[in-house]
Amino acid sequence: MGQVDWIAVDWGTTHMRVWLMSRGGGMIEARSSDRGMGALAPEGYEPALLALISDVLDDAPMPVVICGMAGARQGWAEAPYATVPCAPPDPRQGRRVQTEDARLQVIILPGVSQSSPADVMRGEETQIKGLIATHPGFDGVACLPGTHTKWAHLSAGEIVSFQTFMTGEIFALLSQQSVLRHSVALNGWDDDAFKTAVDEAMSRPQAVAAKLFGLRAAALLGGLGEVEARARLSGLLIGIELAAARPYWLGQQVALIGAAYSADAYEVALSAQGVPVLRQNPTDMTLAGLSAAYSELEHS
Amino acid sequence: MGQVDWIAVDWGTTHMRVWLMSRGGGMIEARSSDRGMGALAPEGYEPALLALISDVLDDAPMPVVICGMAGARQGWAEAPYATVPCAPPDPRQGRRVQTEDARLQVIILPGVSQSSPADVMRGEETQIKGLIATHPGFDGVACLPGTHTKWAHLSAGEIVSFQTFMTGEIFALLSQQSVLRHSVALNGWDDDAFKTAVDEAMSRPQAVAAKLFGLRAAALLGGLGEVEARARLSGLLIGIELAAARPYWLGQQVALIGAAYSADAYEVALSAQGVPVLRQNPTDMTLAGLSAAYSELEHS
Repeated sequence: MGQVDWIAVDWGTTHMRVWLMSRGGGMIEARSSDRGMGALAPEGYEPALLALISDVLDDAPMPVVICGMAGARQGWAEAPYATVPCAPPDPRQGRRVQTEDARLQVIILPGVSQSSPADVMRGEETQIKGLIATHPGFDGVACLPGTHTKWAHLSAGEIVSFQTFMTGEIFALLSQQSVLRHSVALNGWDDDAFKTAVDEAMSRPQAVAAKLFGLRAAALLGGLGEVEARARLSGLLIGIELAAARPYWLGQQVALIGAAYSADAYEVALSAQGVPVLRQNPTDMTLAGLSAAYSELEHS
Repeated sequence: MGQVDWIAVDWGTTHMRVWLMSRGGGMIEARSSDRGMGALAPEGYEPALLALISDVLDDAPMPVVICGMAGARQGWAEAPYATVPCAPPDPRQGRRVQTEDARLQVIILPGVSQSSPADVMRGEETQIKGLIATHPGFDGVACLPGTHTKWAHLSAGEIVSFQTFMTGEIFALLSQQSVLRHSVALNGWDDDAFKTAVDEAMSRPQAVAAKLFGLRAAALLGGLGEVEARARLSGLLIGIELAAARPYWLGQQVALIGAAYSADAYEVALSAQGVPVLRQNPTDMTLAGLSAAYSELEHS
């Protein structure tokens, strides 16, 4: 193993992901565990971190740069929010955490907030930092699909405004826990059903509330298969999101930063609107953002 | 106890409710249990029914008239759907169920379906039958708020069309199981926050998807109390329902048949639109509908 100079960490709600990094920017090794924020009390964070990295510690202090939910109020230690408009936050405004193990030099990066309309992000700002670091001069919109999809308007290296949609979480609740679970497949896809539903929802978003139970009814009456119902539900929900997010993507280029599955759906829907999409790997963006933060810390 | 001539049953997903009835139409006694469809396999229905009524059986056959989810495919025995436009269905088109106990004469009333847009109801058609029985000549719209709210256009004693909204179920999922659960009270109400949210959602339904996570963000940033957030979430969801259901209520009188809590919210929202509302007790309507069905069976 090469020389580990610092540790990059993305600490989310359900998982923590750790990368052993060399100063040159190269990633040496990726590790992960299921010790996410949801599974930890504050005193559990340091042991959870050590469990993944103690073998690479020696006597020298090891910088550990963390983004994500570890900085939430219910996390390890609350990191502040920077307020838009702002550049993805300066790591020197992050939260330094005192650890029992003196070899750890932990800093949790700040989140970003917006006062009106009220909104917050923790973690996505680091992916946006990575986007800006790898695409200097990018001017446009970042879309980060996920449980809570974020849209951010970026200009001159700053986050100008952003907007969160609960589309991913609502899809999971409706498809797995509502009455629709009897009619919606857990897997599978139907591209035509998805596109048709996106079109319907974008042209008449006010009618979507009237169409959800129709998935169940159509299945009961024999007209709708489970896979088709799944794609149609996704299309209705992404369609009303796109209708509401129109001020973000209309006339813009969109950098799409998300895991393959959900980002594919957004790419199909945005491309159908003639929006130029720039796909970016979310892990690459997280690492680029954490690396940029580490570099700023080192040179401060 | 007076002479029990027949048994009325409303068998829902989570509960069964039983009324001991005299031929004159009077209700002698109400009983209930938590043996709803969700808790029963087909062979469990007869014992669950007997547990509530065996003490009033003698050697004579006892008519038992059932509405609701006992007639679903996953219920006791599947009852057919009548298709709109139709009067609330004739009990003689219901499903007769063979029981082991020869003293029981069980009939499950039909549901109602609509082919386009696809929709189904089981149970509400009996409340509508009760509305028509107690208000001959009623011409207008019935709104039945609940887990799945139904809107039905009634004319000349027939259900012309209907539409189901999952508003109640979506409210429960979002307020109790999504990230919003951290910011939304389980009880309490704020009438002003509700009315403002209904107005917002009705005037810009396409923006509601963008406002849900805002409840969480506003709470984190200190601006929104949990009770206010609860009323606001309810208002946003009922508001987009009313926007989508406008063809039902616009220029109509609305008979509102629902449990106090949710029906109150709908009444506030509809009254703000200048819609005349006729409140009806849902249990009274169920009993009136089952009584009308029993009477039709007796005279057939």
